Amino acid sequence: MAITERQHFSVCFFLLSFCCVALTLLSSLASSSYMFSVMGNEDMEEKRRFLYSEILRDEAVARLLDLGKVSDADAYLERTFMSPASVRAGNVIQEWMKDAGLRTWVDSMGNVHGRVDGMNASAQALLLGSHLDTVVDAGIFDGSLGIISAISALKVLNRNGKLRDLKRPVEVIAFSDEEGVRFQSTFLGSAAVAGVLPVSALQISDKSGVTVQDALRKNSISIVKESLLQLKYDPSSIWGYVEVHIEQGPVLEWVGFPLGVVKGIAGQTRLKVVVRGSQGHAGTVPMSMRQDPMAAAAQLILLLESLCKRPQDYLSPNGKCNDYCFESLSSSLVCTVGEISTWPSASNVIPGQVTFTVDVRAIDDMGREAVLYELSNRMYQMCDNRSVACIIERKHDANAVICDTELSSHLKSAAYTALKRMTGENQDEVPVLMSGAGHDAMAMSHLTKVGMLFVRCRGGVSHSPEEHVLDDDVWAAGLAMLAFLDTHM
Amino acid sequence: MAITERQHFSVCFFLLSFCCVALTLLSSLASSSYMFSVMGNEDMEEKRRFLYSEILRDEAVARLLDLGKVSDADAYLERTFMSPASVRAGNVIQEWMKDAGLRTWVDSMGNVHGRVDGMNASAQALLLGSHLDTVVDAGIFDGSLGIISAISALKVLNRNGKLRDLKRPVEVIAFSDEEGVRFQSTFLGSAAVAGVLPVSALQISDKSGVTVQDALRKNSISIVKESLLQLKYDPSSIWGYVEVHIEQGPVLEWVGFPLGVVKGIAGQTRLKVVVRGSQGHAGTVPMSMRQDPMAAAAQLILLLESLCKRPQDYLSPNGKCNDYCFESLSSSLVCTVGEISTWPSASNVIPGQVTFTVDVRAIDDMGREAVLYELSNRMYQMCDNRSVACIIERKHDANAVICDTELSSHLKSAAYTALKRMTGENQDEVPVLMSGAGHDAMAMSHLTKVGMLFVRCRGGVSHSPEEHVLDDDVWAAGLAMLAFLDTHM
Repeated sequence: MAITERQHFSVCFFLLSFCCVALTLLSSLASSSYMFSVMGNEDMEEKRRFLYSEILRDEAVARLLDLGKVSDADAYLERTFMSPASVRAGNVIQEWMKDAGLRTWVDSMGNVHGRVDGMNASAQALLLGSHLDTVVDAGIFDGSLGIISAISALKVLNRNGKLRDLKRPVEVIAFSDEEGVRFQSTFLGSAAVAGVLPVSALQISDKSGVTVQDALRKNSISIVKESLLQLKYDPSSIWGYVEVHIEQGPVLEWVGFPLGVVKGIAGQTRLKVVVRGSQGHAGTVPMSMRQDPMAAAAQLILLLESLCKRPQDYLSPNGKCNDYCFESLSSSLVCTVGEISTWPSASNVIPGQVTFTVDVRAIDDMGREAVLYELSNRMYQMCDNRSVACIIERKHDANAVICDTELSSHLKSAAYTALKRMTGENQDEVPVLMSGAGHDAMAMSHLTKVGMLFVRCRGGVSHSPEEHVLDDDVWAAGLAMLAFLDTHM
Repeated sequence: MAITERQHFSVCFFLLSFCCVALTLLSSLASSSYMFSVMGNEDMEEKRRFLYSEILRDEAVARLLDLGKVSDADAYLERTFMSPASVRAGNVIQEWMKDAGLRTWVDSMGNVHGRVDGMNASAQALLLGSHLDTVVDAGIFDGSLGIISAISALKVLNRNGKLRDLKRPVEVIAFSDEEGVRFQSTFLGSAAVAGVLPVSALQISDKSGVTVQDALRKNSISIVKESLLQLKYDPSSIWGYVEVHIEQGPVLEWVGFPLGVVKGIAGQTRLKVVVRGSQGHAGTVPMSMRQDPMAAAAQLILLLESLCKRPQDYLSPNGKCNDYCFESLSSSLVCTVGEISTWPSASNVIPGQVTFTVDVRAIDDMGREAVLYELSNRMYQMCDNRSVACIIERKHDANAVICDTELSSHLKSAAYTALKRMTGENQDEVPVLMSGAGHDAMAMSHLTKVGMLFVRCRGGVSHSPEEHVLDDDVWAAGLAMLAFLDTHM
């Protein structure tokens, strides 16, 4: 991705407003590979042993590649809820969990669990995890990285004989469904564990008419209302949930940092906007007599972009948005038009109707509401001025999830420690990011406090075979998980 | 269609700049129906006789309705090149031609001809006509009105014993293909007569693989290269071509005038614009780091609208556009985005690519080129500023056709006379319009000078069963043709 000076300025603003990181030192941060390349061979070997690179990097990367081959399709990666490849992937993960010294089982929503009780089996447990399912034509890191880095860190503790010394139980969960490809319903796995999956979800059908219940039954898992309800963990038995995930965005790469701590997961609203004008022959209606919904839609889309780039220019400071809300909007608000179509869609016809989607996300729910209020008002006004009709339909809403401050602080320290160990130098403060994408942590937040660690990915690309995480960044993630467990468990 | 004050101003500007009509008197122009309704019954009867309402209105309207029932589909009107309904329609039209005293034949492209030689069979002939084919789910006036009004006017002359007194031959042609629905190739009929249809057109196939040649052969018409070339009229044998057609636009209705003279048929350019940006997750890429092709496309579409509404604000007076060009652009330029799509087209993905069509039409070819030059430059500049890539592809070009000044002046007088006779009052000057849509006159302009008369249609709607022309406007069209023949032939 080409980066312009303007973008440089903007992203600095974006991150500074989030975490007050002193970015001026960032340029001095070389990658760990670079650091190693200038070290002597002996030093490097010793360092690698000390940092468990054979487990946290080499084996972890090999496992990511192996799991990336477990697919229902020949030509690309695809693992959907309870598909043959998903079941095979679950079996592989169970073996890795056992290899790390964990006790394993598969629950009645297909989630794969691996647990160690530590010194006190009845203490509140730390849950670690991510999802084992993928999108169609997926990358190999999305979901898998969180599962594998957790298992790898526990494997190091096991090898060092420290598993029994854990103050509290630690449990890794590989969730069976986060992407929702097969049933168009995300978080089947984690929502069940968190106790927020409605019983009706068992009857959702895929394209072939197979229900969630059927899909489980075909894999010898019998689930009824009672067993679903029993899946819910007792909140009092849980200490917190931590998830490692690739960023799926470009910020960490841009600032040159392998890890970032997630401040929260943005709330989201999806709109459908229909603009109705006056259909006509492209050659016979003078410009001045047109009620052209395409030109109107273009104006609305530019308004959306402008408002979401500079909300402070549009929202009244005396309105629904307070100072905190303004600050959080200016750093987290993202708005997208992903789909658009005209009717009747012919090059020589002024459209009678244009329909487009709007996706609005922000970390502050009140701010998002203020944006939607202002956006709708201005859109209606613009349509009015053009004598076209605007219909704005609210199709989907999800509130933001704020990560736990204490957990985030622990993860920040752990990431700092890991990077300092890898480079041998003092580090800049670890960046704090918003997650614009949904994660299992969203569902788990209904059960317990949550924390997330993001890992840099190349070009911000995800949901694509082009998805890539550097081997050393996989290592950094595992080392951060190890530092977190070492220090706080 | 709701008309705002702003539109009122704009359309006045549009028309004034065209024809310097004194629009201030327009409000005093009542429809002829209204005029008749306040006349005495006896006066009205006499007037109707004098104005041949039984032929030019009642019978013409009945024939339009009858021809509108000659369809290949049960539920709607559809007549494509050489379809069974087209052949039946041709037969009906031939009967009406004979009824008007014309000698008839069908040529080897399926065009139906009706001719009267007048006093001098070897003098240059006046051709009158329009097309007998329709679009799918068509209105009953598009094409048919031009054929029927010409036949009706000649029928009046015949009844009055004036056919033999015509100074030159007059020939009505019902062209077999103007809409191009079946073979995606317009003007099969008139282009053949004008001698501009390539021989290769005979081998174009429809969706079932039937060629133009096959379609004719199935109706016992044998056509080969030689017979196609023989279809071309000798230019020296033709005096001119006149076509009556519904406006297919809203201008005449808006100014409250039943007839308008066509200044010319606009030239047209069709572009395909592809904007390529950086695809990404709608939730994870900060606004400041986006290279969003959808927002860029919206900006380009607004630029197009603004440039085409106010070309004088964009084009340099010292550039390619002279004063005449500026004047003609400000009155005739129309630009449309009819189709748009995103890729990959998901509400939660920042598109990687947006594609849209641009249709640009103007009466002045140099002006259209100046607009396209300025548009492309500014589009590339905008894309550059947003760090997205723009590809502008020129898909289709057709130069403008200017109607003959003398013929247009005759048609204007004829329309004026017709309306004065109908209302009994002096009339405002007849409006002069541009045609943004293509017509058989475009093809015929390669053979001879052309003139066109537009007839008001309800709401500017065409290519739809909602297409409608008032009975009295059908009458006005017939009366204008009669006045034209009476005065100039």
